[in-house]
Order: sequence, then structure tokens, then C-alpha cells
Amino acid sequence: MPKLWNETIDKHRAAVRDAALDAMATLVAEHGLVALTMSQIAERAGIGRATLYKYFPDAHAVLTAWHERQITTHLDQLAAADDPADPALVRLQAVLRTYARIQHHSAAHHGGELATLLHRDEHVDRARRRLRDFIQDLLAEAARAGEVRDDVPADELADYCLHALTAAGAAPGHDAIHRLVAVTLAGLRP
Amino acid sequence: MPKLWNETIDKHRAAVRDAALDAMATLVAEHGLVALTMSQIAERAGIGRATLYKYFPDAHAVLTAWHERQITTHLDQLAAADDPADPALVRLQAVLRTYARIQHHSAAHHGGELATLLHRDEHVDRARRRLRDFIQDLLAEAARAGEVRDDVPADELADYCLHALTAAGAAPGHDAIHRLVAVTLAGLRP
Repeated sequence: MPKLWNETIDKHRAAVRDAALDAMATLVAEHGLVALTMSQIAERAGIGRATLYKYFPDAHAVLTAWHERQITTHLDQLAAADDPADPALVRLQAVLRTYARIQHHSAAHHGGELATLLHRDEHVDRARRRLRDFIQDLLAEAARAGEVRDDVPADELADYCLHALTAAGAAPGHDAIHRLVAVTLAGLRP
Repeated sequence: MPKLWNETIDKHRAAVRDAALDAMATLVAEHGLVALTMSQIAERAGIGRATLYKYFPDAHAVLTAWHERQITTHLDQLAAADDPADPALVRLQAVLRTYARIQHHSAAHHGGELATLLHRDEHVDRARRRLRDFIQDLLAEAARAGEVRDDVPADELADYCLHALTAAGAAPGHDAIHRLVAVTLAGLRP
């Protein structure tokens, strides 16, 4: 097949996949996760049920794929907020602030709870681990620079940050988010 | 009806209700929440489907009731850990430590994620608010005693604590839980 044809098919596939994931997120925001079916997802995505089954074996697979897409997007946003030329603490601050904003936005738009629901899942675990590694590396560097406590392992500090900042989902506004980031950072002080 | 008879009926009702809630928690731990049905819950609880419907209108209602039972139990445990005769910071420490242990235990046994899944729910919101109020009051008292920062509202600090301590769910053991509580408390320092 010519390259252009392949590209068109790839684009179409990506569009169907994205429509399914968007539909899933909307449905969960409306009804919660209980009894979410492939038929509902297909209908909301505006595609046939048979088509949906070509992409995902079941509703849980759609959920997992949606969550992986979320985390990947978030990682891109964090990487964009991070300037490796800055001192360690400035980098940490910028990244944690961005993560808090993402949490706030994500709770407002489709319930941050989805993320935590999927903890048990192997696939999602890998995606989450990439997120944690990113924060953990920044923390380790800041600890070496003497700007973050080194009496607690960096992976535990990363878990603390990621969990504490999910409180941004309930924060009433930007000032509250800033205060949350400041309190979270205060916990990291040497 | 004689009093004894009423008591027997009440006990029976409580037992059926509890069996349904336990079944729900087990099923969610096994399969996740997607497509959890009343039939599955009834079968696992060892009661008829018609009986289950006498207690709960749908699977989501079982979930909500389960979560409310959880939070009530947790509040009792926190209240038991709290000695009003102690100084504010000691009380706060004891309560946060207990909450971290609860999170650790609850993540190990039936996925702490259930809690966060239900945020949107009015009923559960009330139960969660009681939990937050409890922590918030302790924080406000500690702030008045000059042992906790007063530049951030106590309700925001309470949210920070409750979210940060959910990281205990992933903590490898008791030492890590202690470190997490210490880091969380460090964020609260004046």
C-alpha cells in the first residue's frame, strides 16, 4: 500500500480510538463507573459496537487506554514546564506547580478519581511509574544540591508529592493551588 | 411485636446488609468496578437477588453504603486515637498517624481507590466532610497554639493531609508510613 494510504488509515484508527476514549470519559463523569458497557461507549463515540470491539476487548480496556493517554499527556506537560538549565529547586517547584494545575483541571473535567481507580492495573502501573520516576529524579537531584531533605528516600518523597497534590482537585482556585504547592514543598525541606 | 422479635429482625437486616457490602468490596477487589451487577453482589453475599433489591436500589447504592460504613469506622478509629487531654500537636500527630495506617491497610485489603471514586456522590461527600472537619478542627487548634502554620486556611491544610496520607496505601511498611507522616507534618510547620 502507498505511504499516504497507510497514513490515512492510521489517522482514521487514531480518530476512532480517541472518540472511544472521549466517550468513556464523558460517560464516567455522568454515571460513574458502575455498569459502564461497550454499547454505551460505542453509542457515545458515534461508532458501531462491532467497530469498538475491533479496538478494545472490553470496557476496562477502554478505561486503561484512556488513562494511559492521560498520563502521557501529563508527562508531556511536565516535561514542557521543566527547564534543565534551572537550579534543582526551581525545576521541582515548576513541575509540582504544573502537576497541581493538571490535577485541578482533571478533577473539574472528568473526575480525577479515574486515575486512582486503576492503580491495580499492570499497564497503568507502568505509566504511573514513568510519572513517579520523573518527579523522583528531580527530587534526588534537589537532595544532592542540599535543597531537599535526604533523610527520606526520593521514591517515597515522590509518592508524597503526587498524592498531596491531588488535593488540588478540590482546591477552590489558583491561590489555593499555590498554597497547596507551598505546603507540599515545605514538607520536603531539609 | 415484642421487643425481642424486633431486635432479631434488626439483627437479621444488619447481617444481610453487611453481607452485601462485604460481597461488593470483594468483587471490586477482584474485578474492578466496571460492570459490577446486583446479581454478582447477591450471589457473592449468598442472598437472593430479590432480597438484595429490598435493601439497595442498585449497585451504586451498595457501593455508597459500603463507603459510608468505611468512613464511619475510620472516624471511630481516629476518635479513639485522639486524647483531648494531650497538647494540640501530639493529638494531630496521633490522628494523622492512625489515618495513614488506615489508608495503608485499606489499600492492601480492598483498594483505597473506591474512596476516591465516589467523590462526586452527595451522600459520600457528607461522610467525607465529617472526616475533614475532624482533622480541620485539630489543625485549627494546633494553629492557635502556634504549632501549625496559620498562613493557610485549616480546611485547605486538612485536604492536604488527607490526600498526602493516601500515599500510605503504596508504602512498603511501617517505617515508610512513619516517614510519610513526618514529611506531611513538616509541611504544616509554622
